[in-house]
Amino acid sequence: MLNCTITLKVRYVETDKMGVVHHSNYFAWFEMARVELIEKAGYTYAQLEKEGIMLPLLNASCDYIFPAYFDDILDITIYIKEIKGVKITFRYEISKHGGDGTIITKGQTTHAWTNSNLRPINIKKVNPELYNKFIEICEK
Amino acid sequence: MLNCTITLKVRYVETDKMGVVHHSNYFAWFEMARVELIEKAGYTYAQLEKEGIMLPLLNASCDYIFPAYFDDILDITIYIKEIKGVKITFRYEISKHGGDGTIITKGQTTHAWTNSNLRPINIKKVNPELYNKFIEICEK
Amino acid sequence: MLNCTITLKVRYVETDKMGVVHHSNYFAWFEMARVELIEKAGYTYAQLEKEGIMLPLLNASCDYIFPAYFDDILDITIYIKEIKGVKITFRYEISKHGGDGTIITKGQTTHAWTNSNLRPINIKKVNPELYNKFIEICEK
Amino acid sequence: MLNCTITLKVRYVETDKMGVVHHSNYFAWFEMARVELIEKAGYTYAQLEKEGIMLPLLNASCDYIFPAYFDDILDITIYIKEIKGVKITFRYEISKHGGDGTIITKGQTTHAWTNSNLRPINIKKVNPELYNKFIEICEK
Repeated sequence: MLNCTITLKVRYVETDKMGVVHHSNYFAWFEMARVELIEKAGYTYAQLEKEGIMLPLLNASCDYIFPAYFDDILDITIYIKEIKGVKITFRYEISKHGGDGTIITKGQTTHAWTNSNLRPINIKKVNPELYNKFIEICEK
Repeated sequence: MLNCTITLKVRYVETDKMGVVHHSNYFAWFEMARVELIEKAGYTYAQLEKEGIMLPLLNASCDYIFPAYFDDILDITIYIKEIKGVKITFRYEISKHGGDGTIITKGQTTHAWTNSNLRPINIKKVNPELYNKFIEICEK
Repeated sequence: MLNCTITLKVRYVETDKMGVVHHSNYFAWFEMARVELIEKAGYTYAQLEKEGIMLPLLNASCDYIFPAYFDDILDITIYIKEIKGVKITFRYEISKHGGDGTIITKGQTTHAWTNSNLRPINIKKVNPELYNKFIEICEK
Repeated sequence: MLNCTITLKVRYVETDKMGVVHHSNYFAWFEMARVELIEKAGYTYAQLEKEGIMLPLLNASCDYIFPAYFDDILDITIYIKEIKGVKITFRYEISKHGGDGTIITKGQTTHAWTNSNLRPINIKKVNPELYNKFIEICEK
């Protein structure tokens, strides 16, 4: 299964008074990984939106295993867990870059395929090429 | 069961180019509701932290049912789902203030009780008064 | 001169590892005050945007005098410093609610009047009623 | 004069309903550039904080010249404008990576040198080595 890893450095603004990364940031990082995965599939998020295809969230979850700290360099790995005509589920794992592979957080997001008015669409029918591209990624 | 509802107005900065509230903000709103619930129980988050009691997240999840928009006035309702010596789980529901009660998002967070070094503690032993206070809230 | 004061409670997510409010949040708070001032003038930001009138920033600045902390209750006061056909300047002061009036931060933002494509417009010509309303606010 | 340029890709979460980057994000990006400049000088922000040296803001300002968009790749260039015993001023310029050099925003931040209790210190006396390092950077 094709996956995609992005690397980022924790920003000061992403920390909170507990001295660690605030838990809400992981969802923004998952999103960055999605953007890259879609790009790797030959599309861009921006382009999809121009074509009137949106991916609003149905559900998001995150398991916090170890804290991350300011200035940490992290790897965010994403893969497609499941793709259907009406929705798509991604899985994520975050670990320290160049570390021993210990997972910091694990997450999952499920998204609806919608048009630009956020009405559900069936991507299999609306853009079968895109659907097949993602199926291909899943099976790799 | 005691619950607690806070009301907020969606900020411009909380929207994204999809024209709706960015999904990561709901987790910050859940947090605001936690702060109020703890205050309603007779404590403050700040005070707990001064006493060396932290509540880092173990897990967070959110179901996105309807989008929220800039300038919407929203109610965030929180209640305790379960409290144990080593962790506590909260549930949340967000709906439009003064609306028909339609749920916009539903969420859940589970937190570990830790000391200020983020090491797990058993709150039943470390601060039985606080534990009992929360049990009382749960049973109300 | 008409001014407008909003009150907010500092969110946990708005703190950083220095234990104080991260400096970028003040700009989002200034924005909240703008939204309220415009509402007080009989409009809404959302409504202006629907009419194709936007207020993107030309400049923003902030003087940080005292830090603000988690759970602090703060007053953000805004007034119009100057209004012209092509731009508008607001001033802001933040202080502790119920405190001795000590200023925490002072800020200023200047905005262009634009259409929905972010092209400059002259509000005096495009919407003289709105312009006059703001002039009136300034002179009060 | 030594400068330092970092490159980043605009995140979806950094956009707002106007379809452009929300103006508050530029201050977080300036901060990222500061972190890199200090690293280039042979220190780390994290290390300075461990030594009890903080750099809270006295003032921040930003001129918004052109909007930035989701997925844009941007260069943030920082240089030291002035260093004194009690404060330091940085200048920033943001432009499109690989573009024609058109400036998107220009900014400036002034910071106090403080100890970990946010009390002002004179860095010339407290850490002359660090002060001289920065003077050297300025003169390069």
